[in-house]
Amino acid sequence: MNAIEDLARLLKKLPGMGEKSALRLSYHLIKTDPSFNKALGEKISTLQDRIHPCPICGSYTEDDICQVCADQNRDRSLLCIVEQPQDVVTISQAGVYNGLFHVLGGAINPLEGIGPDSISIAPLMKRIEEGAFKEIIIATNPTEEGDTTALYIRNMLKNHGEITLTRLASGLPIGGDLGYADKTTLIRSMRGRIRL
Amino acid sequence: MNAIEDLARLLKKLPGMGEKSALRLSYHLIKTDPSFNKALGEKISTLQDRIHPCPICGSYTEDDICQVCADQNRDRSLLCIVEQPQDVVTISQAGVYNGLFHVLGGAINPLEGIGPDSISIAPLMKRIEEGAFKEIIIATNPTEEGDTTALYIRNMLKNHGEITLTRLASGLPIGGDLGYADKTTLIRSMRGRIRL
Repeated sequence: MNAIEDLARLLKKLPGMGEKSALRLSYHLIKTDPSFNKALGEKISTLQDRIHPCPICGSYTEDDICQVCADQNRDRSLLCIVEQPQDVVTISQAGVYNGLFHVLGGAINPLEGIGPDSISIAPLMKRIEEGAFKEIIIATNPTEEGDTTALYIRNMLKNHGEITLTRLASGLPIGGDLGYADKTTLIRSMRGRIRL
Repeated sequence: MNAIEDLARLLKKLPGMGEKSALRLSYHLIKTDPSFNKALGEKISTLQDRIHPCPICGSYTEDDICQVCADQNRDRSLLCIVEQPQDVVTISQAGVYNGLFHVLGGAINPLEGIGPDSISIAPLMKRIEEGAFKEIIIATNPTEEGDTTALYIRNMLKNHGEITLTRLASGLPIGGDLGYADKTTLIRSMRGRIRL
C-alpha cells in the first residue's frame, strides 16, 4: 500500500485535510481516469514554474506583467489595495471595478511580527508617488489586521489630500474573509464604499 | 492567471471540493515549497502506474500479491469480506483481526444497477470452495446496500454449514452520545443488546 500511503502523507499537509480525508482522497484518485491524474499531477508539479508575482502590482501572472496592469482600458486613476493575489480575482469577478490593483501580500499583525516592512507598503508608496491616482480603495479584509493596515496606509498618505481614500463598506461580515464573500455582498460593499 | 485557474478547474472535480476551496488550494500551492509540489504532483501522476488490485483478494498492492495474502503468519481459516480496499486498511489498523480479506469492490444496489455480477462475488465463491475457511465475517457497511449484500452472500453459502458466518455488530459508537445517535442506529443497538 506504499504508493497510497505516500500520497496520503503529502495530501495531509494541505490546508483543511485530515488523516482520513487524505486517505479517502488517495483511494478516490486510484479509481479516476488516469489521464485526469496525469493532468492534475503535472499542473501541481509545474505550477510555480509558470506563475510568478507581477512586478508592478504583486498579483500572480504567467506573463511579464499581469493582465490587469497591462490593460490600457482600465481606469488608471483608481487603485484598489488588497491583501492577497486571490482577492484581485474575487473583486474582478464581481465585475464592479475597472481600476488597478495593488497586492500587499498580507496585513500588519504585530502579534505575529508582521510589520509594515513585511508587506508591500514601500512599493505601494512609490507607485502612488509616481502615479496619478485620484481614488485609492483600501480593500484589506474586515479584520483587526486589515483595519490596522488600512489605518496605517491612511496615515502614510495624509500629505496626499488630492487623493480620495476609501474603504470597502460594511456589509462584509466582521471577522470574515474576503475570499468567502458572495458576489452580491461584494458589489454592495464596493458601491457603498466610505471615505476614511 | 491561467495556470491557477487550470489547476483549480481540475481540483474542483475532487470529492468535497467546491469552487472556492479549489481556488484557495491553488493559491496555497503557489506559496508552498516547490519540492513539495513536485513530489505531490509526481505521486498523483504515477499513482495508478504503481498500484493495482491484488489478484487474490482485490485489495490494492504494488507487489504481485498483496502483503496480507502473502503473509504466512495470518490465520487462513478466517475470511473478512469488505466493500472497498480502504476497509482492509481500516480494519487492519484496528489491530483486532489476523485473518484474510476479500474486497467486493462495492455493494449490491439494484436502484443503481449494481447486481451481484457487478461486484466480486463469483471470485469470492471460488475462493471459499478452494479454501479451508472456518469463519467468514461479512464486514460490508451497515447500510441497506451492505445488508442486502450480506444477505445475498449468506444465501449463496447456505450449503456450507461447516462455515460460521458472522456480521460486524452495529450499535452506538464508543465515546458517542446517545442524544446524537440516529434512530436507525438506536433501533439496531436496542435489538442487538447484549446481556451484562
